[in-house]
Amino acid sequence: MFRLKRLEIDTQSEHVVFINERAVCEGSLGFNPLDRVRVFGVDSEAEGQGGITGILNFCHDSLLEKDEIGLSEVAFADMALSEGAQVGATLARAPTSIACVREKLRGHRMTRADFDRILEDVVARRYSKPELAMFVLACALRNLDTQELIDFTGAMVDCGSSLRFDSAIVADKHCIGGIPGNRTTMIVVPILASLGVTIPKTSSRAITSPSGTADTMGVLANVELQASEIYDVVERVGGCIVWGGALDLAPADDVLITVERPMQIDTEAQMVASILAKKKTAGATHALIDIPVGSSAKVRSQAEAEDLAALFRLVAQAVELEVDIVVTEARGPIGSGVGPRLEALDVLSVLRREPDAPRGLREKSLYLAARLLERTGFAPDAEGYRLAHGALDSGRAEAKFEEMVDAQGRRSLPDPAVFRHVVVARRDGRIREIDSLEISRIAKLAGSPANVSAGLKLLRGVNSVVERGEPLFEIHAQSAAQLAFARDYAAESDEIYRYGF
Amino acid sequence: MFRLKRLEIDTQSEHVVFINERAVCEGSLGFNPLDRVRVFGVDSEAEGQGGITGILNFCHDSLLEKDEIGLSEVAFADMALSEGAQVGATLARAPTSIACVREKLRGHRMTRADFDRILEDVVARRYSKPELAMFVLACALRNLDTQELIDFTGAMVDCGSSLRFDSAIVADKHCIGGIPGNRTTMIVVPILASLGVTIPKTSSRAITSPSGTADTMGVLANVELQASEIYDVVERVGGCIVWGGALDLAPADDVLITVERPMQIDTEAQMVASILAKKKTAGATHALIDIPVGSSAKVRSQAEAEDLAALFRLVAQAVELEVDIVVTEARGPIGSGVGPRLEALDVLSVLRREPDAPRGLREKSLYLAARLLERTGFAPDAEGYRLAHGALDSGRAEAKFEEMVDAQGRRSLPDPAVFRHVVVARRDGRIREIDSLEISRIAKLAGSPANVSAGLKLLRGVNSVVERGEPLFEIHAQSAAQLAFARDYAAESDEIYRYGF
Repeated sequence: MFRLKRLEIDTQSEHVVFINERAVCEGSLGFNPLDRVRVFGVDSEAEGQGGITGILNFCHDSLLEKDEIGLSEVAFADMALSEGAQVGATLARAPTSIACVREKLRGHRMTRADFDRILEDVVARRYSKPELAMFVLACALRNLDTQELIDFTGAMVDCGSSLRFDSAIVADKHCIGGIPGNRTTMIVVPILASLGVTIPKTSSRAITSPSGTADTMGVLANVELQASEIYDVVERVGGCIVWGGALDLAPADDVLITVERPMQIDTEAQMVASILAKKKTAGATHALIDIPVGSSAKVRSQAEAEDLAALFRLVAQAVELEVDIVVTEARGPIGSGVGPRLEALDVLSVLRREPDAPRGLREKSLYLAARLLERTGFAPDAEGYRLAHGALDSGRAEAKFEEMVDAQGRRSLPDPAVFRHVVVARRDGRIREIDSLEISRIAKLAGSPANVSAGLKLLRGVNSVVERGEPLFEIHAQSAAQLAFARDYAAESDEIYRYGF
Repeated sequence: MFRLKRLEIDTQSEHVVFINERAVCEGSLGFNPLDRVRVFGVDSEAEGQGGITGILNFCHDSLLEKDEIGLSEVAFADMALSEGAQVGATLARAPTSIACVREKLRGHRMTRADFDRILEDVVARRYSKPELAMFVLACALRNLDTQELIDFTGAMVDCGSSLRFDSAIVADKHCIGGIPGNRTTMIVVPILASLGVTIPKTSSRAITSPSGTADTMGVLANVELQASEIYDVVERVGGCIVWGGALDLAPADDVLITVERPMQIDTEAQMVASILAKKKTAGATHALIDIPVGSSAKVRSQAEAEDLAALFRLVAQAVELEVDIVVTEARGPIGSGVGPRLEALDVLSVLRREPDAPRGLREKSLYLAARLLERTGFAPDAEGYRLAHGALDSGRAEAKFEEMVDAQGRRSLPDPAVFRHVVVARRDGRIREIDSLEISRIAKLAGSPANVSAGLKLLRGVNSVVERGEPLFEIHAQSAAQLAFARDYAAESDEIYRYGF
């Protein structure tokens, strides 16, 4: 038997179990590194219940005593025992649902029951990284047919919790990622809420981008709300902008993404299942999905966007969610800031109707708000834009946003970053396109989103005519080293701005 | 800048980089968990040289100070700097060879140059687990054609070091895994060496089995020899039986296996490339490959074995290795011991011509030795068996083995395990088959190979007629807990012994 120890290592969704190599060699257990083991509380063993399974790492005396078993952060939390508790460990078999994954690899179809079993094991962290990769690749390479995709999405919806609101109509929106400085949500939500639409928005933190909506909102307000707090805020204010990550909404998605991201496997099917399951479990009845198309966006062509839209409609119908799809053009960021603080300033300037507020951000927000108002029946067809415009220009949207910030818990705006560097144009010309991936990379190198004031501020946008030597953008960083990383990368990259007509 | 710290965590072939979450949040770096980062010595940065890349885990104050960066064992070794050295860290891009893997996933062919680039990155630990899984699955699902398999094998050969011996003929043997207690190597090698054949045998430790040849030899002699020591032993004795794991032979294989094993992806192509590359780099000119066929062996049917044999011949020719393939029947272990110490005792009893030496082990060893003698030209056709028999029965093979043990470094035989339990027959009948996978599992639960005296001793073998209640096998363990694990598993399993005619 061992004493349980919490090792403060964040291995994300993977359960890692640590054992002193001497404990194995000197006679307690016949384990090999990377074996899958089950760790159980000694009391719960009697009933064969409880415990967690994880992947084994050997370690030495500097980390663990011979009679200790260490667990990584999530494993320790899931184990739900105190440090020092008596635990045992034994070899664990692979989860039986792996057999379904192997069948798919051989080209067989999967059923709803298969997806349910697989996702249950995925959520319980019973899959190792290579096994997760195998599932994702089986779906990607053997393709899911429409019924499989519907079943996958249904299983994603049912593998965790759901929010439920009283309103008959609950609106939501989603933008297919990849475009930095595209913070329309924080403008659309207060516009709609100010017009009486229930719009409880759960957003993600940055995954591959320099800032997610939850990161940007997080500089102005608390975004880590429990379900009960969300119900309370929405009842009082009509909407919210919060982080969805701790609400157990379609949790399988959060685990799968830990392998999809490094593999850069991002099939249409996985995108559709993931987005629709998140909207559905967030309690939405009507969702607007924005598909930006551009050479550095996730979706690269109009044809691809239309295929994707058709798939969204088909699956949404099956899971009983009304979706409306808009395909937009993405030639670069539509706000001028990239990074949590700078994006939040853009949002505030639009809501406050400041004269230098980014026009692209304002117009796209109004357009999206108009669509949602019309599709949810809150505005007659062709009246949505006028209503949205009125809400914004009258200051009602701003007032609603301030109400929301207060209800969630106001935060004071962080100080601007101290370290700055201006990047200038290397040639004359008209800016045809700004590469979203390059902009994101620079902002991330500068420290965004972990350093909330880091990022960059665009001084010239798409369609501007610039002369060689004119400032294009300013990098903001909270340390000299990060400024240097970002500046050096920008200096070496030729393709951030593309010129032409 | 950070101070380098060694974290004694064995993450096997994966480089893991640890950083205190506060270091990120409080302004030094804009990293996310699981990001790929490059850690570099501050002196080497100037030249853009050196350093390692790894996957980032966040941790807390109990493990690292805010100004420290921790590395897992292999990463620390590859970093080749002392603890406390000044290092920096930056985001790293995915290795460019990943693009070749993606092309393969899309169905394109891979070239020799593609394999070379991929394996170079794999060996440098630049691939994360999901990326390794992607490469393995791309090869498995998109199939390698014959030329690709040849190129893959060639790249495997060239990705590390090779041993080189002076003899024109260097013999080797390999048995496709999965059969416990199948320790013919330790008998074949001394027979051949005693007849003047150069046979430097590099073996693996247990991967999925309860003991590898290196584990079993390791209870009698030192098996961790450097290349120079191997040359020395082989020059003096004519052969050796050592662990190949530290010799940098086809090192990509050792990395790929860390994902193949949990995925249980084991395609013919990967098996062929792995085995032939290991033989080739170990300096062999002639290799005998034994394919045991049985319902619980890796290869399940004669037809499958013949396909595999054809593939071996084709690829071996391309990499200029003479191979001879034998297909053998596997209805259970051919020795009576399973586990390092018990298997070593079997080997010694055959070499010493003891009357109760396991007959199956003796006969199969003679058969394999005969084939190798004939194919290497050391015996005329049909004379191999007679020669091998003479070497064994005259005691020359035993003397050669003792010489080899002395040359490598003799070890005293460990004590027998104290905890034992006899499993009895639950019915009358003739034993038709013993399930290799179940036997392996019991031996591993009992602690083998980490506990060298653990394992099991078969008291009745295939073809024995037994009565209900008669002893079938004895479990040996070095702790009461392990004995209980193995005993309980054996009690619950119905399919260890199969009866019939």
